[in-house]
Amino acid sequence: MSSSNSRRLNIDNINPHVRAAKYAVRGELAVKSEEFRAALLRGTSDIPFSQVISANIGNPQQLDQKPITFFRQVLSLLENPLLLENEDVLINHLGYKTDVIERAKWFLKNVGSVGAYSASNGAPAIRQHIAEFLEKRDGFPANWQDIYLSAGASSGVNTLLHIICADEKSGILVPIPQYPLYTASLSILNATCVPYLLDESKNWGTDINTIKESYQKAKDAGVDTRAIVIINPGNPTGASLSEEDIRAVLEFARQERLVVLADEVYQTNVFIGEFISFKRVLRQLQKENPDGKYDCVELASLHSVSKGMVGECGHRGGYFELVNFDPEVQAEIYKFVSIMLCAPVIGQCLVELMVNPPKPGEPSYELYQKEYRGIYEGMRERANALHKAFEQMEGVECGAPQGAMYLFPTINLPPKAAEAAAKEGRTADEFYCMKLLEATGVCVVPGSGFGQKEGSLHFRTTFLAPGTEWVGSIVKFHKEFMDQYR
Amino acid sequence: MSSSNSRRLNIDNINPHVRAAKYAVRGELAVKSEEFRAALLRGTSDIPFSQVISANIGNPQQLDQKPITFFRQVLSLLENPLLLENEDVLINHLGYKTDVIERAKWFLKNVGSVGAYSASNGAPAIRQHIAEFLEKRDGFPANWQDIYLSAGASSGVNTLLHIICADEKSGILVPIPQYPLYTASLSILNATCVPYLLDESKNWGTDINTIKESYQKAKDAGVDTRAIVIINPGNPTGASLSEEDIRAVLEFARQERLVVLADEVYQTNVFIGEFISFKRVLRQLQKENPDGKYDCVELASLHSVSKGMVGECGHRGGYFELVNFDPEVQAEIYKFVSIMLCAPVIGQCLVELMVNPPKPGEPSYELYQKEYRGIYEGMRERANALHKAFEQMEGVECGAPQGAMYLFPTINLPPKAAEAAAKEGRTADEFYCMKLLEATGVCVVPGSGFGQKEGSLHFRTTFLAPGTEWVGSIVKFHKEFMDQYR
Repeated sequence: MSSSNSRRLNIDNINPHVRAAKYAVRGELAVKSEEFRAALLRGTSDIPFSQVISANIGNPQQLDQKPITFFRQVLSLLENPLLLENEDVLINHLGYKTDVIERAKWFLKNVGSVGAYSASNGAPAIRQHIAEFLEKRDGFPANWQDIYLSAGASSGVNTLLHIICADEKSGILVPIPQYPLYTASLSILNATCVPYLLDESKNWGTDINTIKESYQKAKDAGVDTRAIVIINPGNPTGASLSEEDIRAVLEFARQERLVVLADEVYQTNVFIGEFISFKRVLRQLQKENPDGKYDCVELASLHSVSKGMVGECGHRGGYFELVNFDPEVQAEIYKFVSIMLCAPVIGQCLVELMVNPPKPGEPSYELYQKEYRGIYEGMRERANALHKAFEQMEGVECGAPQGAMYLFPTINLPPKAAEAAAKEGRTADEFYCMKLLEATGVCVVPGSGFGQKEGSLHFRTTFLAPGTEWVGSIVKFHKEFMDQYR
Repeated sequence: MSSSNSRRLNIDNINPHVRAAKYAVRGELAVKSEEFRAALLRGTSDIPFSQVISANIGNPQQLDQKPITFFRQVLSLLENPLLLENEDVLINHLGYKTDVIERAKWFLKNVGSVGAYSASNGAPAIRQHIAEFLEKRDGFPANWQDIYLSAGASSGVNTLLHIICADEKSGILVPIPQYPLYTASLSILNATCVPYLLDESKNWGTDINTIKESYQKAKDAGVDTRAIVIINPGNPTGASLSEEDIRAVLEFARQERLVVLADEVYQTNVFIGEFISFKRVLRQLQKENPDGKYDCVELASLHSVSKGMVGECGHRGGYFELVNFDPEVQAEIYKFVSIMLCAPVIGQCLVELMVNPPKPGEPSYELYQKEYRGIYEGMRERANALHKAFEQMEGVECGAPQGAMYLFPTINLPPKAAEAAAKEGRTADEFYCMKLLEATGVCVVPGSGFGQKEGSLHFRTTFLAPGTEWVGSIVKFHKEFMDQYR
């Protein structure tokens, strides 16, 4: 009896739905890039680049981005409240402003120790401040009891899909291309992904007719489509939806009784157009229709501290707001989140800081504003530099940077490249991205990891990495790749 | 058309497996206790007690427990690394010792910003230190690549059950009474819970014959039992297993090819007996059997920063170690955890601090040791005081406090109480606990929330709350309850 054969678990008998899930953002290429990084640290000499650039994932603080000082000063006091016994030292020797100290005291009074479990749906005082933020943002009231803190938006999506999907016939409309959290979570839940294509020719906007066709096709196949996911601004596309597009989606959701899942984590990462929340448009429609016909449209909107100018991915903070949900369903959501006890409390505090930053006139405002603008402008500059490089590259098409943290260029590769890829058992975009990594150390994600229109090829790159050298190395690689396979 | 009737989601069409899940630790009683707390804050005058005692959940820092200074000093520097620009101020004005500063620098160098995503299975440098801790604890090598950081142990259990359970026939042996995370997670996964009773007459130890009977019964019913959960020290029972019991479980796991899930989060909360890890005994068995017959026994062992003397629940830090797992299965576990990106990084750092605290001779050692012992002795004293009170109470039986953070007394209630409970549609223990809450403000969890032997009744209380007044109020309530229903 061989011991390895007699283990209980093997690849063929574990949960087949986990096995079926795909998550390319941290897949083979990412693993390979970490191997390169480790080899470089060991001083391996036969690697043709000197550093790995992780452009595969929106992880700002792994790269150039510094955290916002005000946020981190407050968090340092929450981690060590004993520091508050020496306010004069904090102020006179360490540059802490009085509003930092006041905010920390507010947290300690209203939330308590960050080492204690909070309420499972989040500390009430924090949820109240989120509601105030939403009221200001949207111009409509928000109810703090409809707000649920989560460990990043990913955990919120996981909760919502768990509630909505009842069985394998339950379908969720998911944009293609999409952030693969959605398809992976649906695989694991053994529910049905109902893909709808975004329109690259219209800056990756939604096309309501395409959505309707996908919905109808699924219906004909017996799928019970229950919800539609919208990522706005888009990931991987960066596109911001117009109010018209949002209205069309909400009207369709009303007609077909679909829950709307609005992934709005990039709401402050907007370079072209403006961010308009689904909540605002839904409340507007409710106001315009006193017959109540929109009062049945259920919306869950998600936000996170990981993106925007905050970029605090490692803290795993986020929330979702439920609009027009049934109280009995909300009670089940509460029960579901309570099984994992609560979201990280220090991450919850960061959510509060994000939605309630220093205001004009307050001691920390000037520095906060300077840092915030600096991060925003830095991202835009890097996005434009990268875009300019793509414009020079043969067979590469890429719209102007619109938002989020990504560019998602089309790559037109020669047939010989596709043949070479097939020989390695890869798609052409995977092949291209692997060669790019091996030649330059730049790790991007092939378009197939997000889904793309049949016959088209893309890759997603963040524009977070500092410097321009890595951009130059992509241009050089691309030319050589095309020369080899043209 | 009534708008509430036309919502898409209602209690009857959401995921039935979520609906079926039960999680009493934060259930009706907990919700009610929070309502009392809010009413007391509002100054409501018709409540017969002046404070709510949350003895329903092991949440030390919500109650009396102070965080360990060394840990929080390090974390404050990780949240605000700019403080390190003023080391002299930290040392001379704020009482930070040099080892605090050194540790913070080590994290910043080896882990990076706590605001960045780490590797999905945790920062390698932290996993290496956990491996060193395990080697010292068990006297056997540990491989850092087999260690996975998680958002508390709950999230680790969720991951492992997701991988192990393939379909509704997949069964998991779960102790009764148990922490309801297990039954709730199995409900949601639509897998089968195979309960086995712990032996109250033997201090809540495992009885291998009982386990075998449960296994056989499930097998006869067509269940594909794949794993056995052991909570050691026990929750809600506090019991530590003997090496003999652990050997018997591992031998049974070998015979029946069961994965062993060892929930060892209370490993330092031991008052009677000693903690012996499953890993140590398994490696010992492997050593004693050079024929390799134990090399196929898969073990996952879980630990957490939430319990022990650390008590940092709100930080959601934990890890699990895999022993003898198939590398292909581990790759699927990696993929699964990568979908949620990573465990909170500051919580990961706390795991490192827990397993690698100040050593004798280091500047922070003395204070660390004093705080650690103080928390331990305080818990033991409160456990003994509570136990003494239970001994005076009519019809209450409770073994001496053994460990964890809980007592789990048997309550023998008069038939009239059971009748009154039935009239309210409650079990007798739920009824008792609700009356206790309403009379005293003390929130405990009925035994039915954990499972209990047919015909027996219990409740679980933590012994974390400070003071003795609340203990007295339980004694007084119990006497009145018995007088009313005797």
